[in-house]
Amino acid sequence: MTRATANTAGPDRLTALHRIGLSWQPSGQAALRGPLLRLFEDCDRAFVRLASLWDAQEERHPASLPAQRLEQVGYLRSFPHQATFVARLSPEEENIDAFLDGPVADDDGRVELPGLSPVTEVLTPAACYHLYNAHQGEALDGPLYLTTRNTCFRQETHHVPLRRLSSFTMREIVCLGTTAETVDFLDHARSAVDLFFGLIDLDVQWLAATDPFFRPQGNPRHLLQRVQPVKHEATYGGDLAIASVNRHHDHFGAGFGLSRDGRPADSCCVAFGLERWLFALTDRHGLDPASWPCLEDAATTVLAKLRGGTA
Amino acid sequence: MTRATANTAGPDRLTALHRIGLSWQPSGQAALRGPLLRLFEDCDRAFVRLASLWDAQEERHPASLPAQRLEQVGYLRSFPHQATFVARLSPEEENIDAFLDGPVADDDGRVELPGLSPVTEVLTPAACYHLYNAHQGEALDGPLYLTTRNTCFRQETHHVPLRRLSSFTMREIVCLGTTAETVDFLDHARSAVDLFFGLIDLDVQWLAATDPFFRPQGNPRHLLQRVQPVKHEATYGGDLAIASVNRHHDHFGAGFGLSRDGRPADSCCVAFGLERWLFALTDRHGLDPASWPCLEDAATTVLAKLRGGTA
Repeated sequence: MTRATANTAGPDRLTALHRIGLSWQPSGQAALRGPLLRLFEDCDRAFVRLASLWDAQEERHPASLPAQRLEQVGYLRSFPHQATFVARLSPEEENIDAFLDGPVADDDGRVELPGLSPVTEVLTPAACYHLYNAHQGEALDGPLYLTTRNTCFRQETHHVPLRRLSSFTMREIVCLGTTAETVDFLDHARSAVDLFFGLIDLDVQWLAATDPFFRPQGNPRHLLQRVQPVKHEATYGGDLAIASVNRHHDHFGAGFGLSRDGRPADSCCVAFGLERWLFALTDRHGLDPASWPCLEDAATTVLAKLRGGTA
Repeated sequence: MTRATANTAGPDRLTALHRIGLSWQPSGQAALRGPLLRLFEDCDRAFVRLASLWDAQEERHPASLPAQRLEQVGYLRSFPHQATFVARLSPEEENIDAFLDGPVADDDGRVELPGLSPVTEVLTPAACYHLYNAHQGEALDGPLYLTTRNTCFRQETHHVPLRRLSSFTMREIVCLGTTAETVDFLDHARSAVDLFFGLIDLDVQWLAATDPFFRPQGNPRHLLQRVQPVKHEATYGGDLAIASVNRHHDHFGAGFGLSRDGRPADSCCVAFGLERWLFALTDRHGLDPASWPCLEDAATTVLAKLRGGTA
């Protein structure tokens, strides 16, 4: 089987991916079944196994967050162009009737909404926001390791199958603690992920990156990220970030009143974009499931090596 | 431990549930960790095991559906008051600036959205809509058994922890086929679920129900459901539907051009509301995980009995 270049996702590749379980939606979303769905879950189990390096506690969070909570950490002011809101028709009968008097959905699939109920919820922008929010106000007496997975929403100008989606799945491992604890976590996490990449034979480059701020040149947080990179992305094929390690300093600890040793806690996270892993793995190892690496086994090997090394 | 009545979810119970992993969000959503999260996943594994009675294929679907597709089966006209839409700011810089010039989120947590991008997507109303949509246009040469789980969204006038949520998790098992095939599936499914209820010692009553149509008295589909019940709910504690069996006749087959034997396929589904199962199981068996039944083992027993009986 010849290897496609990483930055193509043309019709042939889409047809081939369809045969192993991808159903690509024009709205920029992926449905999965069969071999690709099993690979997706295998990826996630591997990441959860990596999270067990720190005995990270699993949490499951809802689809959205209150706008007010997100604004405690300036999310809507920094990323208004990417925010995705939960909207419902205002429930008065006259309003619903006005909706029903229209085409409901026009020929282009657009819905005309007369009056909306108050919009108060933002669909998950990144899985880890829920964790800081859920632990708001806690005073930690040691480092806190957590892991969670969620569907994340973005506004994109264009969509590419398994590469650029309007909603996608993110697994994260997070550490909250002192600066030393979180930096130590991030160093170990990057080592673990690097070992994992080696074992599954996936070439990536780590590149410094910045978050996609609105009007970045005017945003002090963007300027700070340029001066002192806090985000590094494991980049496959030159341009596809499939994992990232992120250092937030005390941004979330201060915003959510989460403290450690009497000071706002620092936080760091490792994030994996699951659909992009499907792209990278099938690009590197082909479309035959028999040629795919066993990701859970690789994660187990990482654990044995790192635990052995630190024991 | 004394048993709470099923229809209460007062502060004491909420505090007790919090201790075993519930974090209740004022927006009507549930976050889970610890014992409750393990029970949640144990429930879902049990339902997936029941689905293996029919070798149902697992599918994973995105968070939303195109409004246009849902309107093929009249969803927005029947349930406009419950529909939940994906809304994003129109991306022109002037529009984003207008948003940023406002309070972003006011003291009540309400977001003022100046101009929206075209609204084209509806957040999942029920997990099974994705399945009919994904198989649109197929001509089946035998019954098709599928299972999927998704986060579903509703507009509710009030919320009750683990009982009435604005977004919740639904596992469904679906059969598409001839009338005989789907009715046979539904009969077996109900037997399987009944056996399961017996094994885990959960008392339910099966009650005929109708879907929550807007202005039901004027909706011919509602009238038809009253004359010939197509939905039965397994009801715990007198008023909490934790599972339902549903017969759609050829509503989805006709709407999505899905055929069997040259005619629009019939469909039936069994649906489980996972958060409500947490309520019922903790209400019936208490808050100590050691007293909870092993749901996967019970599902395995159901399989052995039903397969034994039909072999």
